[in-house]
Amino acid sequence: MNSAELFEDVVHLPDPKGQADYERLVGLDEYKERLVKETLLLVDPELLRNWNKEHHRGELVALDHFAARPSLFVLAGDVGTGKTALARSFGNEVAKRARVQVHLYALSLSARGSGAVGEMTRLISSAFQQVRDAVSKSRGMDGRSGRGIILLIDEADALAQSREAAQMHHEDRAGVNALIRGVDDTAAERLPIAIIMCTNRLDALDPAVRRRAAAVFEFRRPTRAQRIHVLRESLRGSDITEPELESLGEATGEMPGHQYGFTYSDLTQRLVPSIVLDAFPDRPLAGARAIEIARRMRPTPPFRENGHVRSLGGSNV
Amino acid sequence: MNSAELFEDVVHLPDPKGQADYERLVGLDEYKERLVKETLLLVDPELLRNWNKEHHRGELVALDHFAARPSLFVLAGDVGTGKTALARSFGNEVAKRARVQVHLYALSLSARGSGAVGEMTRLISSAFQQVRDAVSKSRGMDGRSGRGIILLIDEADALAQSREAAQMHHEDRAGVNALIRGVDDTAAERLPIAIIMCTNRLDALDPAVRRRAAAVFEFRRPTRAQRIHVLRESLRGSDITEPELESLGEATGEMPGHQYGFTYSDLTQRLVPSIVLDAFPDRPLAGARAIEIARRMRPTPPFRENGHVRSLGGSNV
Amino acid sequence: MNSAELFEDVVHLPDPKGQADYERLVGLDEYKERLVKETLLLVDPELLRNWNKEHHRGELVALDHFAARPSLFVLAGDVGTGKTALARSFGNEVAKRARVQVHLYALSLSARGSGAVGEMTRLISSAFQQVRDAVSKSRGMDGRSGRGIILLIDEADALAQSREAAQMHHEDRAGVNALIRGVDDTAAERLPIAIIMCTNRLDALDPAVRRRAAAVFEFRRPTRAQRIHVLRESLRGSDITEPELESLGEATGEMPGHQYGFTYSDLTQRLVPSIVLDAFPDRPLAGARAIEIARRMRPTPPFRENGHVRSLGGSNV
Amino acid sequence: MNSAELFEDVVHLPDPKGQADYERLVGLDEYKERLVKETLLLVDPELLRNWNKEHHRGELVALDHFAARPSLFVLAGDVGTGKTALARSFGNEVAKRARVQVHLYALSLSARGSGAVGEMTRLISSAFQQVRDAVSKSRGMDGRSGRGIILLIDEADALAQSREAAQMHHEDRAGVNALIRGVDDTAAERLPIAIIMCTNRLDALDPAVRRRAAAVFEFRRPTRAQRIHVLRESLRGSDITEPELESLGEATGEMPGHQYGFTYSDLTQRLVPSIVLDAFPDRPLAGARAIEIARRMRPTPPFRENGHVRSLGGSNV
Amino acid sequence: MNSAELFEDVVHLPDPKGQADYERLVGLDEYKERLVKETLLLVDPELLRNWNKEHHRGELVALDHFAARPSLFVLAGDVGTGKTALARSFGNEVAKRARVQVHLYALSLSARGSGAVGEMTRLISSAFQQVRDAVSKSRGMDGRSGRGIILLIDEADALAQSREAAQMHHEDRAGVNALIRGVDDTAAERLPIAIIMCTNRLDALDPAVRRRAAAVFEFRRPTRAQRIHVLRESLRGSDITEPELESLGEATGEMPGHQYGFTYSDLTQRLVPSIVLDAFPDRPLAGARAIEIARRMRPTPPFRENGHVRSLGGSNV
Amino acid sequence: MNSAELFEDVVHLPDPKGQADYERLVGLDEYKERLVKETLLLVDPELLRNWNKEHHRGELVALDHFAARPSLFVLAGDVGTGKTALARSFGNEVAKRARVQVHLYALSLSARGSGAVGEMTRLISSAFQQVRDAVSKSRGMDGRSGRGIILLIDEADALAQSREAAQMHHEDRAGVNALIRGVDDTAAERLPIAIIMCTNRLDALDPAVRRRAAAVFEFRRPTRAQRIHVLRESLRGSDITEPELESLGEATGEMPGHQYGFTYSDLTQRLVPSIVLDAFPDRPLAGARAIEIARRMRPTPPFRENGHVRSLGGSNV
Repeated sequence: MNSAELFEDVVHLPDPKGQADYERLVGLDEYKERLVKETLLLVDPELLRNWNKEHHRGELVALDHFAARPSLFVLAGDVGTGKTALARSFGNEVAKRARVQVHLYALSLSARGSGAVGEMTRLISSAFQQVRDAVSKSRGMDGRSGRGIILLIDEADALAQSREAAQMHHEDRAGVNALIRGVDDTAAERLPIAIIMCTNRLDALDPAVRRRAAAVFEFRRPTRAQRIHVLRESLRGSDITEPELESLGEATGEMPGHQYGFTYSDLTQRLVPSIVLDAFPDRPLAGARAIEIARRMRPTPPFRENGHVRSLGGSNV
Repeated sequence: MNSAELFEDVVHLPDPKGQADYERLVGLDEYKERLVKETLLLVDPELLRNWNKEHHRGELVALDHFAARPSLFVLAGDVGTGKTALARSFGNEVAKRARVQVHLYALSLSARGSGAVGEMTRLISSAFQQVRDAVSKSRGMDGRSGRGIILLIDEADALAQSREAAQMHHEDRAGVNALIRGVDDTAAERLPIAIIMCTNRLDALDPAVRRRAAAVFEFRRPTRAQRIHVLRESLRGSDITEPELESLGEATGEMPGHQYGFTYSDLTQRLVPSIVLDAFPDRPLAGARAIEIARRMRPTPPFRENGHVRSLGGSNV
Repeated sequence: MNSAELFEDVVHLPDPKGQADYERLVGLDEYKERLVKETLLLVDPELLRNWNKEHHRGELVALDHFAARPSLFVLAGDVGTGKTALARSFGNEVAKRARVQVHLYALSLSARGSGAVGEMTRLISSAFQQVRDAVSKSRGMDGRSGRGIILLIDEADALAQSREAAQMHHEDRAGVNALIRGVDDTAAERLPIAIIMCTNRLDALDPAVRRRAAAVFEFRRPTRAQRIHVLRESLRGSDITEPELESLGEATGEMPGHQYGFTYSDLTQRLVPSIVLDAFPDRPLAGARAIEIARRMRPTPPFRENGHVRSLGGSNV
Repeated sequence: MNSAELFEDVVHLPDPKGQADYERLVGLDEYKERLVKETLLLVDPELLRNWNKEHHRGELVALDHFAARPSLFVLAGDVGTGKTALARSFGNEVAKRARVQVHLYALSLSARGSGAVGEMTRLISSAFQQVRDAVSKSRGMDGRSGRGIILLIDEADALAQSREAAQMHHEDRAGVNALIRGVDDTAAERLPIAIIMCTNRLDALDPAVRRRAAAVFEFRRPTRAQRIHVLRESLRGSDITEPELESLGEATGEMPGHQYGFTYSDLTQRLVPSIVLDAFPDRPLAGARAIEIARRMRPTPPFRENGHVRSLGGSNV
Repeated sequence: MNSAELFEDVVHLPDPKGQADYERLVGLDEYKERLVKETLLLVDPELLRNWNKEHHRGELVALDHFAARPSLFVLAGDVGTGKTALARSFGNEVAKRARVQVHLYALSLSARGSGAVGEMTRLISSAFQQVRDAVSKSRGMDGRSGRGIILLIDEADALAQSREAAQMHHEDRAGVNALIRGVDDTAAERLPIAIIMCTNRLDALDPAVRRRAAAVFEFRRPTRAQRIHVLRESLRGSDITEPELESLGEATGEMPGHQYGFTYSDLTQRLVPSIVLDAFPDRPLAGARAIEIARRMRPTPPFRENGHVRSLGGSNV
Repeated sequence: MNSAELFEDVVHLPDPKGQADYERLVGLDEYKERLVKETLLLVDPELLRNWNKEHHRGELVALDHFAARPSLFVLAGDVGTGKTALARSFGNEVAKRARVQVHLYALSLSARGSGAVGEMTRLISSAFQQVRDAVSKSRGMDGRSGRGIILLIDEADALAQSREAAQMHHEDRAGVNALIRGVDDTAAERLPIAIIMCTNRLDALDPAVRRRAAAVFEFRRPTRAQRIHVLRESLRGSDITEPELESLGEATGEMPGHQYGFTYSDLTQRLVPSIVLDAFPDRPLAGARAIEIARRMRPTPPFRENGHVRSLGGSNV
């Protein structure tokens, strides 16, 4: 299985579309900054030592702890909340600030293989080998890497499912072990590889995987203000007024029948197109009609976790 | 596996029978119009841009959102409510309005394969490849497609079963992933392919599949008026009177013993034939006798979903 | 797998034994007449059009509905209530009335195959192909079939088990789909094939199969009068008196210890032989002794369905 | 797989040991007589017709019912109650009365095969074929069989497990069907083969198998009188007195700690040897010591059925 | 698979270590004597006949029952209570008394094979064949065997798991049947083979296996007196006093936190070594410290059976 | 499979890093001393005999018990409590005190193999063979081993899962047996091999494995004092004050929302790096900000065991 099969795609950043995507993500500043900083320090560890020299007496043991951690980050949260969009785009900012290329490797779900004995283990090991090779080719004399790598594992629960689950298939378990090994080796060798796992089933992640995470970022559905922002952008050019946008923000929030509002995707992939299609081909967009459509539409229900909702504010960052 | 095996049938529309079927569907005007419009815009995206130019200032961002969506539509609802009939016939209307051929590809359930490792994944990928090939052959110089494609996935839950289900077979999960990939690729390349999934188990659809749906249409059993309409049409030519039809409409509705009325199929495939057979060979059809037969017959029970009935009015359209 | 293996037996009707069996079935007149009429109209569809011409103004749309239905009939009910006996014998009456040969194909349970991938699907498809071939060989110039076919699927739940069942094997599910396809194709081509499914587990039938049924006939245990009738016939020639038969009818009914009476088979295969064997070799049959034996014997318990008993009177006919 | 593997053993009766075993079975007279009569009539059906002629007016329809039944008998009951001993020995009495050889074929549990696809079905079909061959070789000109066959299926639940059980293996189900076919064919051809199934899990027998049984005999643990009888025989020659035997009968019955007494095997295989071994090598058997040993010993607990105990008196004979 | 693989080891008794082990077992005199006597009579059955002649009038039927039993003994009880130690050592006493060699064959758990179809059955059959061959080689002209065989099946529940368990694997079930066959054949041929099964899950033994047991011996944890005895022996040579041993006996018994005391192994494999290690390298053993260590240590919890504890006193001996 | 695959790594101790790791472990003195002593006595058993001669009269039987035990130690406890760190580093102290090399063999999880029949059994047997070979090569003339071996089995529950678990795979069960065999053989031959199993699921360990353990050490999360100690070390060099460290110790303890404090890893791998990253690149570390970050972070939840928490104080040491 070659790289084309192990990875859905390998994207070379920065690229203009990615930078735009990154900037379009609203309400996620804390996570954006954290991911960028972390990856920056992976690419150029000297920056942290310089900072230490400037501000403290001697080298903090803390820097050792910092460097010894696996550079694994978990982006968890409901469907349509921007996890994958952030994971796929923050590398652009890193590339811009560090002035190096950042390569995004998106692991293919087919890396689970076809169930043959040992296959998943082999595929995952091979995927880690490839990103490590990509690093070593780029490392300069000064220890500074000429390239940053982001290894993206979307729908990570599919790969790193909890070994607590009684029914877990032996083969899968072996694959989780290979994944853990990959994460640990990357940490041990202090490679400039940020490993990003996205999941909407945080509880399903293997505890041994989750424990290794340097941070778990939890994503939530857009707030009222965020919803209005998205809709305003989408409908600019029509005669829909600000008070009508306010009503749209209201209509897409929590309601008696559902204790959750619209996701980002609900807004852009379902509501806005329905509004367009309703007007097409004879009428222009109109606020009143848009509000009516929004009220009739129901948001995507949250992915069922064990009745447990975690808030963004107090997360494991 | 060749096309004959991947697809139950490939129908070239318009055809007279299909147009008749489409017109015979009553009470579904909203869904009919929506599906026709959506597919029309897939075949000729220029129409939407023209509409925008005519009605708004500059190009709406909304058009981007519109075009970026997967053109996936889910037709959900109880047995015998007309889902499949609509899915198989609306292409006729598209063909008529767009003055192009529309090819309906009905995915065979045998595309699940025989359980061999990787087989379902291969078959589904191959099915998507075939419809994409069919498109590319027909695309003209002007970006306008010379042909519309409808990819029909009936009993979609069999293919796109929720990955939440603990017992889900590894092989099936891989197939769902292939399906998601197919849907996403079709969207990314903005191909004139409308993907229609029919299911009577909406809750069993994989959330990642369902989230991609541009719209979910929910179908219900016929109302009293619709039932009378169907029976009147069926029995025209006999001496059954309008008050007798009213009684038949009553007798085929909800009753103390069952909280649901007759389905469309209950009316046309079970009640009407029983009435005929009862009179044959010696007597003409008679209202009193028909009512008696209707009262003795029980409607098909709804497909068991988790005690959850969704109404047509407030659906995810 | 040749015909001998796909089918338990292929019986050419009429035959004297079958006609006798048909006449011996008591208390089932409604079902008998319905099955005979249905099959008659399959063999010679012209009869229905003639009837229509004679009694109505123009061709009823109802005739279309009638002809478009799958000619699938489900005979459901407890063990020993005569389902299979009726299914195997009513073809004699059809043969007599239509003056054609009727061939009864009894599908073998071995058509489930041995669990190999795709096998059940192949076997069922092949079984349908054989009965269709048998039809086409016999069809005359006038569209009138020279032969009627009854395809009997006994213990149908074994083949058409509900896909709702979580544990359903993938292979079985594929086989159910093949069965549905066979039923649909037979209907679409309006072949003179009556498909009869017998089951004592109606609730276990796949909903998609059951929905296709033109009628579901439900069978019950014999009433007191029917029990006495059977016993009187069996014991005629002995000195057992009418009041003794009355007592026997009583003793074989519901009792404090069991809320159900004897089945037809309990009477003919267990009670009567026990009475005979008790007298043999030295004494003649005697009422008092027969009553004593009946009182000591317990009827076969009903097949466990989900605590749900349906009555004959208000069935889905 | 040859006969040596399909059958544990094939015994030619009468033999002296078997006749002794048969006579030693106490308290089972009703079952003994019934099994002997049934098998006698299978070997020489003329006997029944002669009886009819002698005692009734014309041929009873009852004789037809009698002859049409499967000659299948189920011996059900707790471990150690003599089921297998009776099944293995009653053929001696048949042989003696009918003055023919009776061959006892004891089906091997290995007839379940090794789980290979189709194997159990093949093995069971082959077993039935062998006993049928054995019959046909012996049938004389006069329809009277020169030989009786007893086909013994011990631990029948292992082969004929209820198809109600959700977890039933597909392969097993196919085997049960083959078994049913074998039983039915034997009945249809009216072969002189008595099929005896022994089980301690009556409820686990497939309903379709059980329904075919001409009779179900239920076996119980020995009563106090029977226990004393067995012990008296075993210990004759020692100085144990009749009052001591009475106490032993008491000590081996139901007790506060267990609601069931000793089985036949508990008495002969566990209690008596313990008494012997206790005295060996220095002392003679002594009543007081024997009673003490009996009191310390606990009977084998009944095989767990679903809390359901059926009595001998009112059985399905 | 040769003998080295079927059997963990084959030990030729007597050997000095084994005799010492046998003598060291305390509190098990009844079981020791019973096993020795039973095996003695298997090796030289003439002894029992001589005893009978000396003490009774004529040959007792009881001797027949005695000889006809399977010589199968089940040693059941909690971990660390001496089951296996007794099973492995009592043969020394037999060898000493009977003045013959006794060979101990310890069946390997690998006799379960690797799950291949039929393998477990073959392996177990082959194991029984080997011990039978070993007997036949040694049998003299006088019927007296020149050698005794003990076939030890430790952790017998792994091999003879109850067939009641719904989830039992078909393959395992076949193996249990092979085991039953082996036991029965050994009994039928009256071979001088004592079959000893050890288990800590008596309830998990197949009822058909358990019913064949000539005796079930149940083992319990040591009493206070037995615990003190073991500790006194272990610590003799130190200055630990008798009152301190009393306190140790107390500290190792039932306590508020656990309703069970120390097992034999808890004492010799965990407590005593901890006491030694605590003193090493600088101090001698001291009672006060030993008591403190005992109080901090917790006994091994009993193997979970279904809440059912059986006492030694009233066992099935 | 060669050594590189059976073992994650083979480390030759002492090495400077390991010694540092060993010394950095705080609050575990009792366990450290015990493991070192035990392994010391394995390498040079003469030490114990010398101790005995010096302090007692004659050789204690206790020494026999001591030497006969399997040298198996279980390190159990929550994630991040230092189990593996201790297991990997204590050999350095042994090497230092005994002045021999100590080789640490860390069994790879891939020793479970790929599920092929017999594979896990072979791999585990082979792993034990390799460590035994390593011993025999190093043993001198005087019986004193020139080398100590530590066989580390991390996540031991994965290999030695309880056979009580109903769903346990046959293959796994065979592997557990191989593991038990390896442990027993090592004990029987008194090899200088300390076997260390780490697990966070003590209850999941097979009882037969657990019973063999010479000691079970249970690890707990750090106490408040231990937390402050770790943080003080990490942040030394910054201006964070002692009262601020006290507040940090508070903020990382049990809280209303979680009944458990931070693990060692939570402190060093998550909290400290977050504090660093927060200050980087512009500010020095500051106590107030650190406390704020600690308060927003949540500790890793404990691995779910059956609601059962065991304390360090009263453990099975």
